[in-house]
Amino acid sequence: MNQNLLNKTKAVKEASRKMMKFSTEQKNKALIFIAEELDKNRKTIIVENQKDLENAKKTSMSEAFIDRLTLNDARIDGMISVLHDVIKLNDPVGEILGMDTMPNGLKVGKMRMPLGVVAIIFESRPNVCIEAASLTIKSSNGIILRGGSDAINSNICLTKLIQNGLERAGLPKQIVEIMEDTNRELVKDLLKMKEYIDVVIPRGGLKLVQFVEENSVIPVIRHDQGICHTYVDEFANLEMATKIAFNAKVHRPGVCNSMETLLVNEKVASEFLPKMKAKYDKANVILKGCEKTKSILKNIELATEEDWSTEYLDLILSVKIIENMDKAIEHINHYGSHHSDAIITDNYSNGMQFINEVDSAACYINASTRFTDGNELGLGAEMGISNQKLHVRGPMGLKELTSAKFIIFGNGQIR
Amino acid sequence: MNQNLLNKTKAVKEASRKMMKFSTEQKNKALIFIAEELDKNRKTIIVENQKDLENAKKTSMSEAFIDRLTLNDARIDGMISVLHDVIKLNDPVGEILGMDTMPNGLKVGKMRMPLGVVAIIFESRPNVCIEAASLTIKSSNGIILRGGSDAINSNICLTKLIQNGLERAGLPKQIVEIMEDTNRELVKDLLKMKEYIDVVIPRGGLKLVQFVEENSVIPVIRHDQGICHTYVDEFANLEMATKIAFNAKVHRPGVCNSMETLLVNEKVASEFLPKMKAKYDKANVILKGCEKTKSILKNIELATEEDWSTEYLDLILSVKIIENMDKAIEHINHYGSHHSDAIITDNYSNGMQFINEVDSAACYINASTRFTDGNELGLGAEMGISNQKLHVRGPMGLKELTSAKFIIFGNGQIR
Repeated sequence: MNQNLLNKTKAVKEASRKMMKFSTEQKNKALIFIAEELDKNRKTIIVENQKDLENAKKTSMSEAFIDRLTLNDARIDGMISVLHDVIKLNDPVGEILGMDTMPNGLKVGKMRMPLGVVAIIFESRPNVCIEAASLTIKSSNGIILRGGSDAINSNICLTKLIQNGLERAGLPKQIVEIMEDTNRELVKDLLKMKEYIDVVIPRGGLKLVQFVEENSVIPVIRHDQGICHTYVDEFANLEMATKIAFNAKVHRPGVCNSMETLLVNEKVASEFLPKMKAKYDKANVILKGCEKTKSILKNIELATEEDWSTEYLDLILSVKIIENMDKAIEHINHYGSHHSDAIITDNYSNGMQFINEVDSAACYINASTRFTDGNELGLGAEMGISNQKLHVRGPMGLKELTSAKFIIFGNGQIR
Repeated sequence: MNQNLLNKTKAVKEASRKMMKFSTEQKNKALIFIAEELDKNRKTIIVENQKDLENAKKTSMSEAFIDRLTLNDARIDGMISVLHDVIKLNDPVGEILGMDTMPNGLKVGKMRMPLGVVAIIFESRPNVCIEAASLTIKSSNGIILRGGSDAINSNICLTKLIQNGLERAGLPKQIVEIMEDTNRELVKDLLKMKEYIDVVIPRGGLKLVQFVEENSVIPVIRHDQGICHTYVDEFANLEMATKIAFNAKVHRPGVCNSMETLLVNEKVASEFLPKMKAKYDKANVILKGCEKTKSILKNIELATEEDWSTEYLDLILSVKIIENMDKAIEHINHYGSHHSDAIITDNYSNGMQFINEVDSAACYINASTRFTDGNELGLGAEMGISNQKLHVRGPMGLKELTSAKFIIFGNGQIR
């Protein structure tokens, strides 16, 4: 167990325990000061980021990677605007969720409290420091940031500015800390510190998520793949279906809420599929189909069993012709990743059956799965998108950085 | 990976996926039939339980252990009455938690869904089979029961009767399964089956909980120690304080919600402590005190640093004299287990500060911590008492066997 890390983690926990003393106003003031620090120190941020960019260029990383890593004036503006968005959000801490009087006179309610200390383990984008810290500060949590070695200079610089803002507002600056040493063994140590950390959020590829799940004794909020479906029902408005299925695949194929499999009811397949293919062809989408699909679309590749559970994150789409609602739902629940799935239909019963029986974090009628995002679904900023069922499904916002404790008002009750 | 266990677990998952097809009425009918099965098969239950009792006597287990293991007519009545209690509870599945319209016209809401498959790992008491299964059936979840080898004949018999009841009601009987082989290595396998199990609930001693936490890649709801405090404030009604502090320690010292540490404000210590000790003496409670406490109570043992974080589960109590509210809250948040803590006070501000700042699953004003229990706090039956912050704090009832997914109603929205 690394003693430096343990001491730092303990300090975050101690600082987080003081957070219930601070009002929403004081927390918002800290966020304003952090925005000011970012604005005043643009040059420093860009200089530090330059060090990371130079290292990345030396190791000849991809352009997409370098783009994610880059901080410039526009990106700094973006971070400042995230801070102002979080200031506007309602503070969930202290919210009372109902209160009942028991037969013995005890008044029993539930009240939202911060989780305590969150550890976030993320890759490349340094903006995550600001997004994550602003949400944990607003919800009275402490946070330990552990970014990748590629962005370490940028991350350390941003953390320092966050701490300056906290200090100016009179909040304990240790509620936001960074792991400066990015040795992976230290992450293993971190994942054992269950007395001081309440939840771990891995944000990155499947390998990172698995590493965290396998090594953590702390509760994890998993963020992994999105194998999302659109089911075109026999009662679909086919024009709408074409627009939605196109958007869900093509708008941003590299993200988790884009569609990977298109399911089409057999009664409309021969009308719908050729039109859809013509649209996809123009966008260079490669189709892989089941036998029945191939009998309609000919020259496309045959989808294998593996395709139905593959997250392409690319302009590739598997297509399957489906007999009925039950089979569509079965396919989604079996092969999907319980992330985001949509039905296109004008039939009320089929729509409601889909909503009731599809076991996914976001179930849509007549809309693109691309809306699964904290901002689009009305949460404001998000810590990430949960792919598990415990605590939170889908976008994780401010409320999900709290949980409810029982509060009990008595007048001498004993058992 | 044990193939039999994997196949059984897959079957539970498959069966659980069908549960959204069944109405509350159908689930209640299954619970009625299970109650009937228990009533009709009393002799079989007692014969199977006798086998476990004989094994326990051979290995000369303690009387308390044998008492927990025993099933007799009264205990069977108890299980039947649990089933009828669960029938009366509101079904949380499908509950809609608000619905908002976004600027683009999307209607976004959240709806409660079953978690999926729960694995419960428990010790000795066979009644847990009925308590846990009735809650998971009512909330449309599947369950895998893994009890101890000591109760295996009783547990297998009860599971069979549950499955009979499910079958008679037309529900898939595989939603309740038992691990008949109690080899511990199989539990390790079980804890890796994250594709088929959504949450693991260890219910037992600290060693069991740690074993599960260390080996599970599935989210765990931890049930561990209760180091509960009662703080007698300077503005306490001392007569009420005496009754509550007595009840919290003596009523049932072996359970997690009983008091382990008594904190007393220095302004009232010399009046309160001698009276309190006189009451405790009559109940044979052994006191261990801080230096200041010893200067008032004399002949008691000095409490060590370790005592402040010890769960005695016995007629032993550590006592500390405290300077003020802040110090009391600091002590509780630092040494406690975030389970149940109470303040005794007639001062409004001090009471509210305690409610706001004590980071425990149940925070009490003027009542005994012994009320932390699903039934007492109005949840009906409980799956256990959570000691973590993610998903659920304190008693875990029906609602906590669900989580909310997003449901989104569109009319053609794309991004």
